[in-house]
Amino acid sequence: MRWKLTLEYDGGPFVGWQRQEPGRLSVQQALEDAIAAFSNETVAVTAAGRTDSGVHAEGQVVHIDLTRDWTEKTVRDAINAHLRPLPVAVLRAEPVSDEFNARFSARLRAYRYTILNRAAPPTLEAGKVWHCVAPLDIDAMRLGAAHLLGQHDFSSFRAADCQAKSPIRTLDRFDIEQQGDKILFIIEARSFLHHQVRNIVGTLVLVGRARWHADDVKRALDACDRTQAGPTAPPEGLVLTRVGY
Amino acid sequence: MRWKLTLEYDGGPFVGWQRQEPGRLSVQQALEDAIAAFSNETVAVTAAGRTDSGVHAEGQVVHIDLTRDWTEKTVRDAINAHLRPLPVAVLRAEPVSDEFNARFSARLRAYRYTILNRAAPPTLEAGKVWHCVAPLDIDAMRLGAAHLLGQHDFSSFRAADCQAKSPIRTLDRFDIEQQGDKILFIIEARSFLHHQVRNIVGTLVLVGRARWHADDVKRALDACDRTQAGPTAPPEGLVLTRVGY
Repeated sequence: MRWKLTLEYDGGPFVGWQRQEPGRLSVQQALEDAIAAFSNETVAVTAAGRTDSGVHAEGQVVHIDLTRDWTEKTVRDAINAHLRPLPVAVLRAEPVSDEFNARFSARLRAYRYTILNRAAPPTLEAGKVWHCVAPLDIDAMRLGAAHLLGQHDFSSFRAADCQAKSPIRTLDRFDIEQQGDKILFIIEARSFLHHQVRNIVGTLVLVGRARWHADDVKRALDACDRTQAGPTAPPEGLVLTRVGY
Repeated sequence: MRWKLTLEYDGGPFVGWQRQEPGRLSVQQALEDAIAAFSNETVAVTAAGRTDSGVHAEGQVVHIDLTRDWTEKTVRDAINAHLRPLPVAVLRAEPVSDEFNARFSARLRAYRYTILNRAAPPTLEAGKVWHCVAPLDIDAMRLGAAHLLGQHDFSSFRAADCQAKSPIRTLDRFDIEQQGDKILFIIEARSFLHHQVRNIVGTLVLVGRARWHADDVKRALDACDRTQAGPTAPPEGLVLTRVGY
């Protein structure tokens, strides 16, 4: 039976979603170990988004196949019991058809990037925000962001190691909201290139600090050259909030 | 010159606001040490709310007296530099008149208590919420809370070691809001008894779980007897959000 699991995790202590060299813990490894401990089955977990080291999730989605029958409550609670004390939790476990694939069936991925824009360092939100001391002009960043909405060649915002076949992506939503001393970047697309959100945020901060004009974002996009866009924002401000099917 | 400092802190690693036995770090001690390190002056810090161990603050207010002249920016940034890497930060430093007293001039204290009401344990908000697995009836809790609004003898919700002269307090605001799988209790009063908010939340959870009827809150209040109210909610869900003058 195929299961869809919705996950929340604090990416801080992990090397990222994907299993890497032994001895460094990935979210994938932690989850596979917990599933094996509860079910006595060795499963491979497939995720909608392979988040980087330090990147968080409120709504990561994965699928697994289990041969024995379980209730939804048992799958959720038993995996959570074996995940303790790691900061990973199964929010929901739902049986799905064999055609469901967490990665390839996904039609929408939503991310939120949070900047804490104030002089004082973060305390309650340490590890969950990017701390930017210089005041950021939100209206200017919105003008810059507007150039990125829709379908474009995002080569300028793509990590060197990105393995996607095409650099063409479509941003369906890109909102920038202020909440007190926080600035939230809310971005949705069917899929993203590696580091795309963090490279976009790092570039828009150049606009927010008035080092770049909003139209320089368009020039960077049109260049189709990673060296023409801004730096990569740090991982800790990024959360995979939702995957739609 | 007298200064008003507005503080944010994660109460997790501290024994609470107040200095206690040596070797166990209080927020007060951390702040006094940082002020001494930057100013070379030994100061006593007076706070609006003496938060318990594990209780957080987004808007604690304290006052200090410094003999030398400094700019607001220097006071804020220099104390923050010396507080690192502790999760305490000065959000604002403002010169005030000598009549200002962070504790005795305060006319309003606002707290927020957050319950995470779901089966899965907290990950991103670990240490910042009270995890309650059983579903809570928010409307029933609101009916219970309504009995506590206004001026009452709160002896039933007062810690045994509370040093206040009178058990009479006036709750000016008590709202219960749902945000996704979180339930927020927002409470304002001129001042609170020791453990008052946590004892109220612990009691309302009995109502939320249908172990108590909403009117049992009124009976507990009228009894003026701590043994007649519910248990004390854990500290990690509580935040001192604001102090008004």
